[in-house]
Amino acid sequence: MKHNNFAIPKIIIASTSTVYGGRYLDYLTKDLIVHFKNVEELLFIPYARPGGMTHDAYTDVARRFFKKLNIKVKGIHEDNNSKDAIEKAQAVFTGGGNTFLLVKELYDRNLFPVLRQRILEGMPYLGTSAGSNITGQTMQTTNDMPIVKVPDYQTLGIFPFNINPHYLDPAPGLLKHMGETRDTRLKEYLHFNTIPVIALREGSYIHAIAGKWLLKGKLPARIYFSLDDIREVENGTDLKTLLFSV
Amino acid sequence: MKHNNFAIPKIIIASTSTVYGGRYLDYLTKDLIVHFKNVEELLFIPYARPGGMTHDAYTDVARRFFKKLNIKVKGIHEDNNSKDAIEKAQAVFTGGGNTFLLVKELYDRNLFPVLRQRILEGMPYLGTSAGSNITGQTMQTTNDMPIVKVPDYQTLGIFPFNINPHYLDPAPGLLKHMGETRDTRLKEYLHFNTIPVIALREGSYIHAIAGKWLLKGKLPARIYFSLDDIREVENGTDLKTLLFSV
Repeated sequence: MKHNNFAIPKIIIASTSTVYGGRYLDYLTKDLIVHFKNVEELLFIPYARPGGMTHDAYTDVARRFFKKLNIKVKGIHEDNNSKDAIEKAQAVFTGGGNTFLLVKELYDRNLFPVLRQRILEGMPYLGTSAGSNITGQTMQTTNDMPIVKVPDYQTLGIFPFNINPHYLDPAPGLLKHMGETRDTRLKEYLHFNTIPVIALREGSYIHAIAGKWLLKGKLPARIYFSLDDIREVENGTDLKTLLFSV
Repeated sequence: MKHNNFAIPKIIIASTSTVYGGRYLDYLTKDLIVHFKNVEELLFIPYARPGGMTHDAYTDVARRFFKKLNIKVKGIHEDNNSKDAIEKAQAVFTGGGNTFLLVKELYDRNLFPVLRQRILEGMPYLGTSAGSNITGQTMQTTNDMPIVKVPDYQTLGIFPFNINPHYLDPAPGLLKHMGETRDTRLKEYLHFNTIPVIALREGSYIHAIAGKWLLKGKLPARIYFSLDDIREVENGTDLKTLLFSV
């Protein structure tokens, strides 16, 4: 591992792995081919999966998809030394599940520093849902249930914001059932926290490439800068320029 | 405060303060009149409210309702010594909001032990939503966002189970929008935890009275004993008998 040798990060973080009605990662295929160019083997982190499927089975889901791109997939749990696995990885993909569980597992193995270092060095990273959440400053805008304890809310801190994946617009028909809307929850978050939130609707993703943080997908994203500054941001926007111009 | 003088707890914990289409606490009125018989002043805990409304304004909401029952309402924040306020209270009502915030505020002031003691002594307690969550063993089945850090997930531990308020049945029309269903989340919880969960649908509540823990409301509750034992339980069931017969 080369320390202090920072390259331009190559990151794709998506709200979801599977768009409603679509197939696993299909909507990202075009960008993933470029993103993982020259990658022969990908390291998959299945830790977010909270039961219902083993780490092996979850890794197989990723494996089947990436086989089509001629990329081998290895599960991090297959290695005796998970830190070593990240140090040597050509690329890393962290799948979704429960963010509390993912964060706990990464802390338990002290993997945040090495994963952060590798991403900052330019190792291609892909995250979906919980795997996207952890690229922000803290996991405090997760939608997940605190089914396990975490030592801390701090995550990779690659981006100067937090992610709210699966952002859902308030809808009259849903209000009856759902208690607080996502919008209400994120405003409540802003009463106690200053870190902005990028709320990604299903099918939206952020593609960090060539020094830009491009917002992609069919829908606009919703950015919570502060209680007084909440914006809808169009597909194609460079979030880095936007954030640093605030 | 009389220590070690345990009476039969008098508790009403409700999924929500306001049933859809109804008015604040209205559906509980009949039971509240009996529950708070001889209570002249109620202590209200507004700590769960995560902004949007001051503690004063939130307390006023409760005050307006209880005025109809000839019960005065004092906000715990109006007292310089919140521990003292609980020790002297004739009854306590904890309102809903964000469970992480409520738990943090109670830990910050070291109020869990005194509140637990008073409830076990037989002081009437009312909780809605977050205020219900805290009567269980841990707050790990909250639906709320972790907008603040909590020192621990442990709560009052009055009941030998956890509460999932606002339980929502899986519905095909909602699935498209919501990611994991509540049922999926609670099963994930059971992969890592052994404490059973009482999932209360809107309008359901538990009324601890005369040594029974009666399930009330129009809808059945859903009890997650374990991954292999999930049951629908009818209105009128004594949860204590049910739980201790498992």
